[in-house]
Amino acid sequence: TIDAERLQARLLALGEVGALAGGGVSRLALTEADKQGRDLVLSWMQQLGLTISIDAIGNVVATLAGREDLPTVMMGSHIDTVSTAGLYDGNLGVLAGLEVIETLIESGIQPRHPVAVAFFTNEEGSRFAPDMMGSGVYTQALDLATSLATIGIDGKSVEQELNAIGYKGDAPVCDVAKQVAAYFELHVEQGPVLDEENIDIGVVEGVQGISWSEYTVHGTSNHAGTTPMNYRQDAGLVAAKVMTFVNQLALSMAPQQHATVGALELQPNLVNVIPNFARFTVDLRNCSEQKLLEAEAELAAYLEQLAEQHGVSIEKRVLARFQPVDFNPRLIDSIENFAKDSGLSSKRMFSGAGHDAQMFAPLCPTTMIFVPSKDGISHNINEYTSPEQVANGANVLLQAVLNIAEY
Amino acid sequence: TIDAERLQARLLALGEVGALAGGGVSRLALTEADKQGRDLVLSWMQQLGLTISIDAIGNVVATLAGREDLPTVMMGSHIDTVSTAGLYDGNLGVLAGLEVIETLIESGIQPRHPVAVAFFTNEEGSRFAPDMMGSGVYTQALDLATSLATIGIDGKSVEQELNAIGYKGDAPVCDVAKQVAAYFELHVEQGPVLDEENIDIGVVEGVQGISWSEYTVHGTSNHAGTTPMNYRQDAGLVAAKVMTFVNQLALSMAPQQHATVGALELQPNLVNVIPNFARFTVDLRNCSEQKLLEAEAELAAYLEQLAEQHGVSIEKRVLARFQPVDFNPRLIDSIENFAKDSGLSSKRMFSGAGHDAQMFAPLCPTTMIFVPSKDGISHNINEYTSPEQVANGANVLLQAVLNIAEY
Ligand SMILES: NC(=O)NCCC(=O)O
Ligand SMILES: NC(=O)NCCC(=O)O
Repeated sequence: TIDAERLQARLLALGEVGALAGGGVSRLALTEADKQGRDLVLSWMQQLGLTISIDAIGNVVATLAGREDLPTVMMGSHIDTVSTAGLYDGNLGVLAGLEVIETLIESGIQPRHPVAVAFFTNEEGSRFAPDMMGSGVYTQALDLATSLATIGIDGKSVEQELNAIGYKGDAPVCDVAKQVAAYFELHVEQGPVLDEENIDIGVVEGVQGISWSEYTVHGTSNHAGTTPMNYRQDAGLVAAKVMTFVNQLALSMAPQQHATVGALELQPNLVNVIPNFARFTVDLRNCSEQKLLEAEAELAAYLEQLAEQHGVSIEKRVLARFQPVDFNPRLIDSIENFAKDSGLSSKRMFSGAGHDAQMFAPLCPTTMIFVPSKDGISHNINEYTSPEQVANGANVLLQAVLNIAEY
Repeated sequence: TIDAERLQARLLALGEVGALAGGGVSRLALTEADKQGRDLVLSWMQQLGLTISIDAIGNVVATLAGREDLPTVMMGSHIDTVSTAGLYDGNLGVLAGLEVIETLIESGIQPRHPVAVAFFTNEEGSRFAPDMMGSGVYTQALDLATSLATIGIDGKSVEQELNAIGYKGDAPVCDVAKQVAAYFELHVEQGPVLDEENIDIGVVEGVQGISWSEYTVHGTSNHAGTTPMNYRQDAGLVAAKVMTFVNQLALSMAPQQHATVGALELQPNLVNVIPNFARFTVDLRNCSEQKLLEAEAELAAYLEQLAEQHGVSIEKRVLARFQPVDFNPRLIDSIENFAKDSGLSSKRMFSGAGHDAQMFAPLCPTTMIFVPSKDGISHNINEYTSPEQVANGANVLLQAVLNIAEY
């Protein structure tokens, strides 16, 4: 079994990097805080004498050699965060992977397969869309050049910021289908199910589809006091109507459909001027690709109607689009069995969040392990998973990895 | 009659100050651009040898002495603008007032009463709420100390910025009821009525009531993909519901009621995080105080219901509250008559925008003159009133002022 105290100490130490005054952390991808987090985790990887590789998008992979020259059993996740994050999202998967490897080393076990732990660049997608950018490039689902050229919410590019923090490496491109035997990711659920039902381990069967888009509405600025209501081309009102529409849409497709408008900007953004400009994001998710397409189509039809009705123009930009992903049935079964063997309760479930694992799933046997998130809270400074729950997840991860690495 | 070319030249010259790349101007109150606009207008006032006074809130009054020691006939408006403004809103009233005085001087006319032209600080209220701040302090409807302490949208105070631009004067407080014989303000309509009906002069009977408030919604940030729709405390969604609600409310009370959400900010403002914070403004207007109170009450009830339904807390801050104002019936009649005598078409109307004149109305005979705004557009860089329309308004102003100043 893993060293629960060491794992906990590393979670807390990494949580000091980019710590916010009121608790929680902010380490948006490729910021100075992200660099400091990377440096810390890298130093731990180096202390274990692992072989480190850093690729052109800044993904860091640390490998323990196997007894034979076989494909690698890989664990991974991310250490970038949203701007109001807790200590667990992503970090847990990376530090548990490191702990699994340290446990193997300490136990004098060199598995047949190499075993690696990775942290992928910009999983969150909050600063640079799409999310899962690093693992997308790693698995060649995303184009490297396009990803490097991506401009973030603060106007800087991925390449510029990778260079600024010194994490643009030169590791060769990985042929995942040939070089990775299996991919495992331990993660906090980030939703309420396990916590509410008091279950130890989430056996993750797949990840729901993600559709992110950004809409820009061009209306006409005019005087708030003198412009008759039916003369207005109010870009802010159009944005508000979309916000309430996608909420209604998700409620009408409950409980599978999720819809969120997280970001919105108005111009000129003054009390007595009708906004001539609104830009906002829409995050739609569904476990069914067909339902997700339906939701996208309904939104598109509504936008057309709104543009007509309000005399505004609306531009769409796709920020991210991932189809739902199914994980490997044998690995799913194995996680369920290892949980049972360890006397832990478990439940099969889909992931609501996007994860690096979903990028591996089409190329190699892949699955995930979830542990509970207190009150279902994540992307929030109060995100919490207890040390015991963390250890439960890491121990299931250890067994699952060892099983495949010796296979 | 006034010199239409000189007036036009001054409008264009002032429009160079704070000019925006795409046309129009931005001279938010007490910014460096506002200072430059003030300096320019002040220099014109000084060239005419007028007596200048600047008071503690930065109002500038330039007076032509009368033949007798009588109360002043005052003209005025403002030269601050919204951040995406045209050249006419406010500026016209000030420069036309200056033109009236220059015309009197050139014609060798020294009226019985002193005649003054003023520009008042921060009429727009876009940077510092409330609007009509300078005229509010001038007429003692607003408290000086409170106004000086007001914090703007960029975190700076009125006093700080007045000092920074050197316009905190020491002129004594004016007792308007005793010292001002009448107040006239020429302004662009800023709405579509005169332009649409092809009318030269708007005879302004009063100003509708203004209710500005700012709401801050505190929800809970959480993950956009994992948080079930019915678990959310989405501050952004609550803001959007209010935006659509006040729009529906105004439509249901059409055409008198106006409602606008001009400014909105979300936090953390990221694509995949449910907003835990929304702050937005609501601008409600009605010519009937009773209807305005009704609209405010309906909004308050809806906010209470929303807070309950979404599990969020909502704070309210009043930014501005002005009751509807009626202008002086005799002055209204005189404007109508002078327009008719000049062969100009006219129409009686209420003002949708707030104006400095409304602060004078309770204390001295007051009225306004409107000229058309092309396509009803204002608070927009494309605001436009033709040189001829400008001259029409200034000539009616000249006659109205001369009439009272000789009275
Ligand atoms: N796990 C996680 O929070 N991923 C970020 C991408 C998403 O929004 O799902
Ligand atoms: N005239 C004018 O635009 N005043 C600004 C205050 C308001 O919003 O009515």
